[in-house]
Amino acid sequence: MKKLSRNQRVIAITKMLTDNPNKIINLNTFTEKFNAAKSSISEDLVIVREILKELNMGNIETISGAAGGVKYICNISDEEKRLFIDELCQLLKDKERVIPGNFIYMTDIMYNPQIVYKAGIILASAFSNMDIDYVVTVETKGIPLAYEVARMLGVQLVIVRHDTKVTEGTTVSINYISGSSRRIQTMSLSKKAMKKGSKCIFIDDFMKAGGTALGIVDLLKEFESELLGIAVLIDNVGTPKKMVNKYLSLIELSGIDENGSVKISPSKFIK
Amino acid sequence: MKKLSRNQRVIAITKMLTDNPNKIINLNTFTEKFNAAKSSISEDLVIVREILKELNMGNIETISGAAGGVKYICNISDEEKRLFIDELCQLLKDKERVIPGNFIYMTDIMYNPQIVYKAGIILASAFSNMDIDYVVTVETKGIPLAYEVARMLGVQLVIVRHDTKVTEGTTVSINYISGSSRRIQTMSLSKKAMKKGSKCIFIDDFMKAGGTALGIVDLLKEFESELLGIAVLIDNVGTPKKMVNKYLSLIELSGIDENGSVKISPSKFIK
Repeated sequence: MKKLSRNQRVIAITKMLTDNPNKIINLNTFTEKFNAAKSSISEDLVIVREILKELNMGNIETISGAAGGVKYICNISDEEKRLFIDELCQLLKDKERVIPGNFIYMTDIMYNPQIVYKAGIILASAFSNMDIDYVVTVETKGIPLAYEVARMLGVQLVIVRHDTKVTEGTTVSINYISGSSRRIQTMSLSKKAMKKGSKCIFIDDFMKAGGTALGIVDLLKEFESELLGIAVLIDNVGTPKKMVNKYLSLIELSGIDENGSVKISPSKFIK
Repeated sequence: MKKLSRNQRVIAITKMLTDNPNKIINLNTFTEKFNAAKSSISEDLVIVREILKELNMGNIETISGAAGGVKYICNISDEEKRLFIDELCQLLKDKERVIPGNFIYMTDIMYNPQIVYKAGIILASAFSNMDIDYVVTVETKGIPLAYEVARMLGVQLVIVRHDTKVTEGTTVSINYISGSSRRIQTMSLSKKAMKKGSKCIFIDDFMKAGGTALGIVDLLKEFESELLGIAVLIDNVGTPKKMVNKYLSLIELSGIDENGSVKISPSKFIK
């Protein structure tokens, strides 16, 4: 391959690093791909690291040792975070979203890739200092968000199902109490889905009483694994008594007022 | 903000464009953010476009007019595509994957963000010249892949469910015949999920006889919408009689031989 200029190299390096969040790329990958000296690549990386950091677009970390290299850790500025959550609250306030039973239709938001991508970066950056093995979710609405968090953290996604499928092999099923409706429900996970002794975080779209999160804690015990964190996009603070103590949310829903308006606001986590 | 150097600008521009696939970014966004003249930004964009194209990392398209600007279209080289699919076939050939009933366990692959991301780019680039409104999938295993394709195409994801949920509002349900088992099944979609007269593609993890894809065609008719394309990660060519004619796949599974080995190979689409 012909020699690339510094301009060209820093573009390609940025693309390769941001395409692979939290994955170590050895410097030799760059020197070989761009036919450049290690010293040039090191200087390129300093430029990429500095400007991404300055613009709050992420961090480039250096890992030393034989298996070392550099890796990209996602980030977002507090200002962009606040703007994004404010916009999301505006979207959710729409009276048209209220559906019979006083539920709020939010499926379009949970399946909007631009929204999920940003929410995923915000949640992933909250857990990026933890050394976790899996991002766990329960089907169906939280799957895109959980996938994006897993991608940003560079770890495997695990989806817990409500039914068992022949294509999953041997499964472990537990019963749990849905906190709000007090109904008994089942969740299942394939024995092949998780190694024993794993560290996990649980990501979901919505928290009411937290019964599902508590069910996940129980299910993970069957895999001798532990839950180190819980995060949801929307916390229904209208159900104040929660079955789990510590969790993160981006938006707080407190109910629907007498005029049919949705009462929603950024959570305390969004400064 | 202080003036940035060209090196710094091209890094930030690359990050902003690749973060928002198929979304038009106005040049003013860059001139304001980087406190730079339009002529400088135009030159930056030429550099970014040329090197991404040369390395098969994607294309930067220019859209003229008042709402114009530039947008990033994902791409991947034929060589990288082939290498990736070869690796995936190796992974899938593992005898350990065969589970009772002669099914192949592939959930870990469908939920591996690094694999899904690359497969998503390959499938999205096959549809990037089509002007589609939605990427449609059926829960559960194909959701991450469908999400990634939707994100790369810059469109909304639609997830069809097997049951109806109170949080979905009014839904449309249809019955369809699962092609392989000949069982009658139900699929449902919220009326709020799709505008009438939309153009869609259907993305799924696996195709056996294609009954699900045919069901999607029927369901979309209820929304006066049409299906312009179908793509799956794995095509079970061991079930040769398909209920749909035209579809794309990345990998072909022809069965399990007498030694318990999985017979799998790249599909014709992968050159």
